Amino acid sequence: MVSSALNDGVSVAKGEIVSQRELKEILYDIIFGTESRAGKLFDLVLICSILLSVLAVMLDSIGWFSRTFRLELTLVEWAFTILFTLEYLVRIYSSPNPRAYIFSFYGLVDLLSIVPTYLTVIFPGANFLLVVRLLRVLRIFRVLKLSRYVGESNVLLRSLMVSRRKVFVFFYSVLVMATIIGSLMFIVEGEDNGFTSIPTSIYWTIVTITTVGYGDITPHTVLGKLLAATTMLIGYSIIAVPTGIITAELAHEIQRDRQTRTCPNCNHAGHERDAKYCRICGAHFPGAD
Amino acid sequence: MVSSALNDGVSVAKGEIVSQRELKEILYDIIFGTESRAGKLFDLVLICSILLSVLAVMLDSIGWFSRTFRLELTLVEWAFTILFTLEYLVRIYSSPNPRAYIFSFYGLVDLLSIVPTYLTVIFPGANFLLVVRLLRVLRIFRVLKLSRYVGESNVLLRSLMVSRRKVFVFFYSVLVMATIIGSLMFIVEGEDNGFTSIPTSIYWTIVTITTVGYGDITPHTVLGKLLAATTMLIGYSIIAVPTGIITAELAHEIQRDRQTRTCPNCNHAGHERDAKYCRICGAHFPGAD
Amino acid sequence: MVSSALNDGVSVAKGEIVSQRELKEILYDIIFGTESRAGKLFDLVLICSILLSVLAVMLDSIGWFSRTFRLELTLVEWAFTILFTLEYLVRIYSSPNPRAYIFSFYGLVDLLSIVPTYLTVIFPGANFLLVVRLLRVLRIFRVLKLSRYVGESNVLLRSLMVSRRKVFVFFYSVLVMATIIGSLMFIVEGEDNGFTSIPTSIYWTIVTITTVGYGDITPHTVLGKLLAATTMLIGYSIIAVPTGIITAELAHEIQRDRQTRTCPNCNHAGHERDAKYCRICGAHFPGAD
Amino acid sequence: MVSSALNDGVSVAKGEIVSQRELKEILYDIIFGTESRAGKLFDLVLICSILLSVLAVMLDSIGWFSRTFRLELTLVEWAFTILFTLEYLVRIYSSPNPRAYIFSFYGLVDLLSIVPTYLTVIFPGANFLLVVRLLRVLRIFRVLKLSRYVGESNVLLRSLMVSRRKVFVFFYSVLVMATIIGSLMFIVEGEDNGFTSIPTSIYWTIVTITTVGYGDITPHTVLGKLLAATTMLIGYSIIAVPTGIITAELAHEIQRDRQTRTCPNCNHAGHERDAKYCRICGAHFPGAD
Repeated sequence: MVSSALNDGVSVAKGEIVSQRELKEILYDIIFGTESRAGKLFDLVLICSILLSVLAVMLDSIGWFSRTFRLELTLVEWAFTILFTLEYLVRIYSSPNPRAYIFSFYGLVDLLSIVPTYLTVIFPGANFLLVVRLLRVLRIFRVLKLSRYVGESNVLLRSLMVSRRKVFVFFYSVLVMATIIGSLMFIVEGEDNGFTSIPTSIYWTIVTITTVGYGDITPHTVLGKLLAATTMLIGYSIIAVPTGIITAELAHEIQRDRQTRTCPNCNHAGHERDAKYCRICGAHFPGAD
Repeated sequence: MVSSALNDGVSVAKGEIVSQRELKEILYDIIFGTESRAGKLFDLVLICSILLSVLAVMLDSIGWFSRTFRLELTLVEWAFTILFTLEYLVRIYSSPNPRAYIFSFYGLVDLLSIVPTYLTVIFPGANFLLVVRLLRVLRIFRVLKLSRYVGESNVLLRSLMVSRRKVFVFFYSVLVMATIIGSLMFIVEGEDNGFTSIPTSIYWTIVTITTVGYGDITPHTVLGKLLAATTMLIGYSIIAVPTGIITAELAHEIQRDRQTRTCPNCNHAGHERDAKYCRICGAHFPGAD
Repeated sequence: MVSSALNDGVSVAKGEIVSQRELKEILYDIIFGTESRAGKLFDLVLICSILLSVLAVMLDSIGWFSRTFRLELTLVEWAFTILFTLEYLVRIYSSPNPRAYIFSFYGLVDLLSIVPTYLTVIFPGANFLLVVRLLRVLRIFRVLKLSRYVGESNVLLRSLMVSRRKVFVFFYSVLVMATIIGSLMFIVEGEDNGFTSIPTSIYWTIVTITTVGYGDITPHTVLGKLLAATTMLIGYSIIAVPTGIITAELAHEIQRDRQTRTCPNCNHAGHERDAKYCRICGAHFPGAD
Repeated sequence: MVSSALNDGVSVAKGEIVSQRELKEILYDIIFGTESRAGKLFDLVLICSILLSVLAVMLDSIGWFSRTFRLELTLVEWAFTILFTLEYLVRIYSSPNPRAYIFSFYGLVDLLSIVPTYLTVIFPGANFLLVVRLLRVLRIFRVLKLSRYVGESNVLLRSLMVSRRKVFVFFYSVLVMATIIGSLMFIVEGEDNGFTSIPTSIYWTIVTITTVGYGDITPHTVLGKLLAATTMLIGYSIIAVPTGIITAELAHEIQRDRQTRTCPNCNHAGHERDAKYCRICGAHFPGAD
């Protein structure tokens, strides 16, 4: 795109400044594209910024660090927020289909990355409230933007989407099983052995079925141990199911991914390898002639 | 069904009240069917009732909640029991083959959902506290009533049924291994390190093989730790087997499920897609012409 | 076999008592066979005897039970030992190839099931020694005899034997990884945090890689937690390997098992479906014409 | 190689001592080769030396053992170091392409096996205790020298290398999920329940997602338990992915390994079965005519 625009000597000769349309195209190539040199540099800078801003949030959560470097952390916080706000506005400006970008998954993530910091200004007194802390953590969603640069993550995401019905059935089955086994354990073990209520017993059952096994609640009676051992063995068979489902769908998606491409603007997958424009939002594919 | 009955103006014109046979068909369509508008509404109400009644049982198990809202919980309990009793009776009345319904899986679940509450009347004195507590918790089996609405759960259930021989062999192998390793650990570690008896050691072995690992019993001697590490590695290879078995059967069942349908009356699966009547209990398939 | 011997009126008419050769064949059919009525009854009695004798060993390991019922347990112990000794002798007598039976896997298990009890007579003073307790537990190997009646366990065993080279490589890789990661954790965490020596750290690494996670040893330093998290993720990928190996071999073996049969005398597998005699030890297949 | 050199009577007759070129070939055959008798003997001695030296490092890490046998351990240590140094020098001398050997994986491992001991001489004072301790433990990397003898371990390594892109995406996805869930748990549970900072919460999330579940940090609030249970179920579906990826790649690599061979000098894989020389470093394949 960039090179074709620069090589096109006639159009540049006619106007002394680059026309707005061409500016948009250049910006689009830099920001959304991943194949030109400027696009690659922009991506690299963005990845570093995101990682650093996430690191700042994490350090902020460590008590003594937060108290010692309060000022530095606030400065860093506002620097990244302004940077990401600019990036967000340029993305909207340069997108060939702004509406599609804004309401795409990554568009919403981009917005969520900058909103929490501004909200701390509107609610200054509420600085230490739980709600604001929750919003602050949303900035970590910025990390999700990284996955845009790893095309293969789409395979993982899509294979989970395709098999969502089967995974739902699996979750439902596990919950029903956890409810029944949890209730039985509540009767068998009782409140004295840590199984204080049915919800707690269900929590224990899920910890056991998924083979996590914290050990904060364990059976103490003989019957309880017998039931627990049975739960582990049955649960292990049940839990084998998602492995099978995901594996089958993943194999299918990997094969399909080799034959199609994904739109960088609206993230819609399954375009033909020789496609030049997204058939959903009309964006031009960078690198395509 | 409903619409064909209503459209059939001649038969309605002849008798002023809907004949008993037509009433049965309408009820059957509402209660067992899932495609007419009335049937969908009935299903929605029933699902909400089931979830609320299960929630009530769970809240009842939390000590302080049960003591504070004793009256409210009892009222809610009886309301749901009467509702489910009515539903059970109407199901028997409207079923084209009541015997097949009563002895089907869901027929038994429907019965189990209402019996415990009535039994609490028969055992009014709190002297048999365990029985009352057991009956109170058994009501949680109502959650199984939901399975009727998760069509694909049949796939999971059937794939477990088909591979039950192989899964049994697997369970048996694990138990033999657990017995031998458990005995060795009992000798190596002894009573002082928590391995108080062979049954307890077997419980520890199952907790370890299934990778749950509570940590309530752990090896303390060098030889015990060596044996435990070996158990984990060997056990991990053995436990990989059900994953393979279930995956293979599941893939087969998913494919088969696309080509067949399941009877809503007796829950028998594997009917042809163009079948209109269950070949086992003779019930008419709702939605079929 | 039995029926053909009985039907063969001429030979029976000639001698009034059943010849020794015929007796052997009848016994062979009852003890090794699983298809005649007498054979099925014998198997059922044997399974119950084995389970009861295993139960006796388990109960014997529970301190208070052993002290209360010392006499009863000794009587039960000797009753089962004499029963299994008789069974062992009859098996040798009736086997068409006694040497093949004695040195087969199940022949050795049968011998190991009865030897420990006799050894307690030879070493009477050593009754409470650890070694004798170890031998006593060997009786639990009797349970292994059960698997003779579950033909499908051969599939599991053979698929493990076929992939033993690959599983060995896997075990070796895990041990090398555990050694390296264990040493690093020993340096990072040190003796104060429970990682008292490299062998202990290797034990911790295996507990972590296999996702058992007892929690008796856990990292306390930041670097240790980072290394532990990395170990879990890498380990999880490594540990996925046996699942793949076993699954592939299992699928192959299941298919192969449908086309072949296994010798009941020497347990050699892979005979053609129409085979009448074992091509290794020459035993006649029960049920074959 | 050896026999062809010895049989070649003419060349031996010409010079009374074996020429340097022939010496190199004989040494190459003994040290790098695995098929001649001398080569097998050398390998056996080397494997035993490696295992013993690794055992010495492990024993050295056990406090009381190290203090009691300080002198013996130092002597054993230097004996093995000199032995491995000689082996390393002879390998460089006899290799047809020393540079390729030195910078190959096993060349670096061989160097790493001897360097730490010499460095302990350079840092003689115990004032840098950690450095000495680190160097002492680093010797454990000698265990990697064993890998040379486990031909099939290349399959495992290569299948991990081939699928490194997909495994990276998986690791990245798990880290993003761990970051988000960890932050939520930090807000929900807070510092009082052990979730002292976001990094600690992320550590907890990885421990939970990989189903290790130490139990050193566990949720205490109702909301935290609900979130933890959800994490386990979602995490279990995500974690099923590497199993699928590794399995598919492993199956491919096993098939490929049957058709190719690996260079013993530079460890480059994928040579044709009938190849006589490595197409990367030019080394002659032992055993090839």
